[in-house]
Amino acid sequence: MKQTCLSFALVLACAGGVLATMPSPPAQAATTATSESSAAPVLVTPAQWQQMASQGERYPWFAKEQARTEAQLRKMMRAGIDVPFPKDKGGGRTHEQHKRNYQALLAAGTLYRLTGDTEYVDYARRMLLEYARLYPTLGPHPEGRGQIPGRVFWQVLNDSVWLVNAVQGYDAIRDALPAKDRQTIDDNVFRPMAEFLASEPKNFDQIHNHSTWAVAATGMTGYVLRDQELVEKSLRGSRKDDTFGFLRQIDLLFSPDGYYEEGPYYQRYALAPFLLFANAIERNEPRRKIFERRDGVLLKAVDVLVQSSYGGLFFPINDAILDKGVDTEELVAGIGIAYARTGDGHLLSVAEQQGRLLLTPEGLQVAQALADGKAKPFDYRPMLLRDGPDGDRGGLAILRMGGEGGQALVQKDTMQGMGHGHFDKLNWLFYDNGQPVVTDYGSARFLNVEAKRGGIYLAENRSWAKQTVAHNTLVVDERSHFNGDWKRGEEHAPTVRFFQADEDTQVASATMRDAYPGVTFTRTQALLRHPDLGLPVVLDLLQVQGAKPARYDLPLHFNGHIVSTGFQAERFVDQRPVLGKDNGYQHLWLDARSPASSEARTLAWLLDGRFYSYRFGSSAPAQALLVESGANDPEFNLRREPALVQRVEGQRAVSFFSVLEPHGEYNGTAEYVHGADSQIRDLVRVRGTDAELLELRLASGARIALGVADDSTSEGEHTVTVDGHAYRWHGSHARMDRTAGKEAAR
Amino acid sequence: MKQTCLSFALVLACAGGVLATMPSPPAQAATTATSESSAAPVLVTPAQWQQMASQGERYPWFAKEQARTEAQLRKMMRAGIDVPFPKDKGGGRTHEQHKRNYQALLAAGTLYRLTGDTEYVDYARRMLLEYARLYPTLGPHPEGRGQIPGRVFWQVLNDSVWLVNAVQGYDAIRDALPAKDRQTIDDNVFRPMAEFLASEPKNFDQIHNHSTWAVAATGMTGYVLRDQELVEKSLRGSRKDDTFGFLRQIDLLFSPDGYYEEGPYYQRYALAPFLLFANAIERNEPRRKIFERRDGVLLKAVDVLVQSSYGGLFFPINDAILDKGVDTEELVAGIGIAYARTGDGHLLSVAEQQGRLLLTPEGLQVAQALADGKAKPFDYRPMLLRDGPDGDRGGLAILRMGGEGGQALVQKDTMQGMGHGHFDKLNWLFYDNGQPVVTDYGSARFLNVEAKRGGIYLAENRSWAKQTVAHNTLVVDERSHFNGDWKRGEEHAPTVRFFQADEDTQVASATMRDAYPGVTFTRTQALLRHPDLGLPVVLDLLQVQGAKPARYDLPLHFNGHIVSTGFQAERFVDQRPVLGKDNGYQHLWLDARSPASSEARTLAWLLDGRFYSYRFGSSAPAQALLVESGANDPEFNLRREPALVQRVEGQRAVSFFSVLEPHGEYNGTAEYVHGADSQIRDLVRVRGTDAELLELRLASGARIALGVADDSTSEGEHTVTVDGHAYRWHGSHARMDRTAGKEAAR
Repeated sequence: MKQTCLSFALVLACAGGVLATMPSPPAQAATTATSESSAAPVLVTPAQWQQMASQGERYPWFAKEQARTEAQLRKMMRAGIDVPFPKDKGGGRTHEQHKRNYQALLAAGTLYRLTGDTEYVDYARRMLLEYARLYPTLGPHPEGRGQIPGRVFWQVLNDSVWLVNAVQGYDAIRDALPAKDRQTIDDNVFRPMAEFLASEPKNFDQIHNHSTWAVAATGMTGYVLRDQELVEKSLRGSRKDDTFGFLRQIDLLFSPDGYYEEGPYYQRYALAPFLLFANAIERNEPRRKIFERRDGVLLKAVDVLVQSSYGGLFFPINDAILDKGVDTEELVAGIGIAYARTGDGHLLSVAEQQGRLLLTPEGLQVAQALADGKAKPFDYRPMLLRDGPDGDRGGLAILRMGGEGGQALVQKDTMQGMGHGHFDKLNWLFYDNGQPVVTDYGSARFLNVEAKRGGIYLAENRSWAKQTVAHNTLVVDERSHFNGDWKRGEEHAPTVRFFQADEDTQVASATMRDAYPGVTFTRTQALLRHPDLGLPVVLDLLQVQGAKPARYDLPLHFNGHIVSTGFQAERFVDQRPVLGKDNGYQHLWLDARSPASSEARTLAWLLDGRFYSYRFGSSAPAQALLVESGANDPEFNLRREPALVQRVEGQRAVSFFSVLEPHGEYNGTAEYVHGADSQIRDLVRVRGTDAELLELRLASGARIALGVADDSTSEGEHTVTVDGHAYRWHGSHARMDRTAGKEAAR
Repeated sequence: MKQTCLSFALVLACAGGVLATMPSPPAQAATTATSESSAAPVLVTPAQWQQMASQGERYPWFAKEQARTEAQLRKMMRAGIDVPFPKDKGGGRTHEQHKRNYQALLAAGTLYRLTGDTEYVDYARRMLLEYARLYPTLGPHPEGRGQIPGRVFWQVLNDSVWLVNAVQGYDAIRDALPAKDRQTIDDNVFRPMAEFLASEPKNFDQIHNHSTWAVAATGMTGYVLRDQELVEKSLRGSRKDDTFGFLRQIDLLFSPDGYYEEGPYYQRYALAPFLLFANAIERNEPRRKIFERRDGVLLKAVDVLVQSSYGGLFFPINDAILDKGVDTEELVAGIGIAYARTGDGHLLSVAEQQGRLLLTPEGLQVAQALADGKAKPFDYRPMLLRDGPDGDRGGLAILRMGGEGGQALVQKDTMQGMGHGHFDKLNWLFYDNGQPVVTDYGSARFLNVEAKRGGIYLAENRSWAKQTVAHNTLVVDERSHFNGDWKRGEEHAPTVRFFQADEDTQVASATMRDAYPGVTFTRTQALLRHPDLGLPVVLDLLQVQGAKPARYDLPLHFNGHIVSTGFQAERFVDQRPVLGKDNGYQHLWLDARSPASSEARTLAWLLDGRFYSYRFGSSAPAQALLVESGANDPEFNLRREPALVQRVEGQRAVSFFSVLEPHGEYNGTAEYVHGADSQIRDLVRVRGTDAELLELRLASGARIALGVADDSTSEGEHTVTVDGHAYRWHGSHARMDRTAGKEAAR
């Protein structure tokens, strides 16, 4: 059939005798569906399928996605059906094959509806009959992992993911199956899978993303099998008393601002079942107004997830793979559903960046809107995302200037984040010029790479990646926060002191108690723009109060090649020692160690053609250590990355203060350098009676002061005098600029 | 003047009274020029300027470049003229300002011709009068470097570059200057500058790229000042006897294939004066047929330079900055001139990649052709680039499959490359999937970064980057080739044995004698495609013959994160020793050391979502060492990169053999892995009487054999028997495949 028919209206004129051999068009498939209404699709309505089938090809994004899906599925169909006995860990052959199978089932159901081609039904039917033979024979997976092993996969979580995907494909073809096959597949695949997932409270009745996948799988299966009991349990917990279940998860796992306790990496992962199940609920039980629950928190969560990214990649806080970003499949679903409900054109630019969409009614709306040119740039903006179900358990502070490729400072004042949380209270990250500059290691894991322990979290995730010293925050006596016990960490959250996000001045401040017995620390960070500086700079003040003298370490993990070290140091150039024994210190090689001093020092590095000058000091003498990760790593599991550690010994109290200045340009192509010199001459810290102040002295003569009151709630006046000049302000903090002898409050 | 006139034809209707204050249109500027014909432009003819002025705006690429240039120049004009007394090294303020000034002079001359705006003339005139006051007062630069310090810059090379650029701008405005100013500038800037450059044989009479810049500067100045004597000296050397000078440089610095002895990085740098001066010669003395010299070698050199790149970056052999690539300014000029002379549409895709062009007659032709959609993909293809003026001093072998983003293997069998050459005979590089996989460190230098020793070559360039151990080739007794003496290196070149570049089989082979006393080594490498392998693989056979027992080291510098080490080794995880004392070994940390063994081992790594499995063995027991650069580096000048070293002790002769297999895909976004397992089961080496053979055994059962005769010139039959199977072939080498017991010659 070489001749191409341009549209449905032309088919009769153009196809002639070919028509008889063409697959039934989608409208006929839908007609068949109504003949057995108890099997008609419910996750997407027949009318919606018809609309996609008739309109999809008009919209390039939808048509391209359909073509891509078709090509992939055809390739799998050619390879033949393969439903192997489960044997392998993540990344292994049987694991990957079962993953491909659920993708194939979803694709087959979708393409059948879009094209009416019954070959897809037959392929899915035959594969599902294989599963119907296999599944009842399965016990716990031989490589079973965690408290509840899966059946098809090694961890039960993967079984949930299989079901969430496969049941959508099944829903689309169920009414096209012979009744006997449908019965076989209902009874031997979907019902027992759902029952298995719901049978174990440790899987089903939890407030945790694994459980969200489980309830989404069982709930969606409940709708498809017309099993309202299963739906109820999924929504309200296995005891149907609302202690657990989907609704309770919505209430507890998100903060009122849509932040998810585990952080963006898991927020992304959890988002898919939240949104897919919510969408199924909305279609089948709109009276539940699921998307309005908690002031629309599910849709807020989509926006928050995009806001929690830079350069297309999520902020890698807690256990996170660095290469995960806004183009992940889960967020493709999220953007589609959020756009369909809000019509917000800013989401469309994210869809463009993703380069794909889902073959769903929501995907069609995205494709239509993109074709209509409705996309607007996503509005990346500074924000404080409160954490905790009630929004009073710390938060994630995001300071931003210069939009998408500009500066972003992330201060992590959030809750622990459960078992995937890192011990990094008041940690910070900094991005500039499209690059991570002050970094977080993320997790130590090679997802799905079998040679790396089957792709699970490596031992180094616990021994390095989670430890405090692997982050940019205070370590006391070489131990991690909460002594590395995440359950203790769950009990204590930071207190956000204040948050300001103006055009030229953005400030975040938080206090942490109880990360160490008797130690309180407060971090205040500002992103400041000034006409005499090429780019905004970061001021950082970390004030520590302890009950007894201790060793205080403050690491800074930076990205770039060192250009200059503005301090004397003993160098370990021909025998490289390890920094410490435990809690992550055993993974750090020591390259340089300066004598202790109170004078401000500098370190400058070069990254992607831009210079970064870091000027740092402390109220008590500190050593500067230059270190690199990678020690005690027999299997080469760690990346090797540099850090600077400021170390103060035997003090009760200390203030660490610093400024990070991005500047200049190194252009290797055009062979020029400009702005290689820092525009900052000095950084001075002065203590008043009830406040501290940092004064930044620029090469231009201008001065920028940041005053920070000890008590952020007091409304009174504070005074700090620097070289005879009295800085005065009211309230928690103030930026005060002086130019040529004048003072200007901002 | 808010109102915008759409085209020249509308000016009268639209501009009204504004017309009087508009700058003269370009045609009038050209008219003025003819009034003083001895000052009319000669580097670009008045007619060519007129054509650009009248047609340029029609072509988006030209118009965009003009707008960009205009914006940059306007910014400089607003900043005011600044001709500082020379004081700083590379990267310093006065250095960068004088660089900006020559760019401004070139831009001002060009824009005056394109727009007729005399403001540009005035700006250039005032700047040049500043130079006329300054230049006669200058002695050797206070930071003077090398045998001949510059005047305006610390090294005389930069003075030459200044003149090449500035004289082009001056040529464009010279007839628009008052006679007195012209005289002043001729006499106090351009003539003395040219005379200074020509005055010192160590600068002017050399066969070296520095001298090419010098002769181009003086020759172009000669045309502009109508000083034929200066032109003659530039073309034929200061004694006008053709011992030196531009023509001799063309004859000696390029091989017949257009390869430039120093390698692509310096080929790029040298290309600009070669082509700019040649273009000037062609315009003023077309009878010299300069572009036809040596069978058009100058235009071949442009093609070769693009061929010597991967992913847009030049192969970093010898002293090379890694981020230099086809988008450098020099090659922008090169592509323009080459396109104008050949009309080859393949060059236009390079212009597109460059994203810019020059505001010259050639740039206009590129812009026109791009507008006409004439661009074709550049044809990256395998080739042997013979080295040496007569093409008999080794060569650069480039094996390629899969086009631009496919596989590229570079075997460096070239001459020494003078003072910028590295000691790396028969070194190799490998690229795949858009990435460097087997790497070359390039040079140890932060170009123009003042904090890094003023931006010059660092001490580590000599102590590390040039040394043999920093490369992927044979080191004997921990010493570098020629004992690190480049002048000795100049005397000896490798011998190319054979080169084959078919679709599925590409092979390069060369022999090196005299890199070490009494040691001969031969390397044969093949890039092989096979239906049972997902991607082409590299076979490598390095045969060494020495007069006495020695330590033979063979490093492999690889890019990626180690996934698995298929061998037992002592690990240095908590105290990292240095590998050796000198010749680069002092810069290597030792991470792991295996016992000596003759069994083939494996090392696998992951890079940008693809796995690389390296299987290696040797005819005598070898240790496997895992090392990393960065030891004995007090100023943090080195990048820290991993390498594998195979070490054979106390042998006279040894064959190292290996296969490098790219395979599989790790997709972090979509969370899948496939093809993580190598498809190669074994690699066997067997010695015959007059030949060696490698047999690659695939998981599929297929076998691929590569037979290599000791004497590549013998036409006779060779036989090597492996496990009872006799492989027979005629001539230097052969690929022989066996599938399920059958043998197929390719």
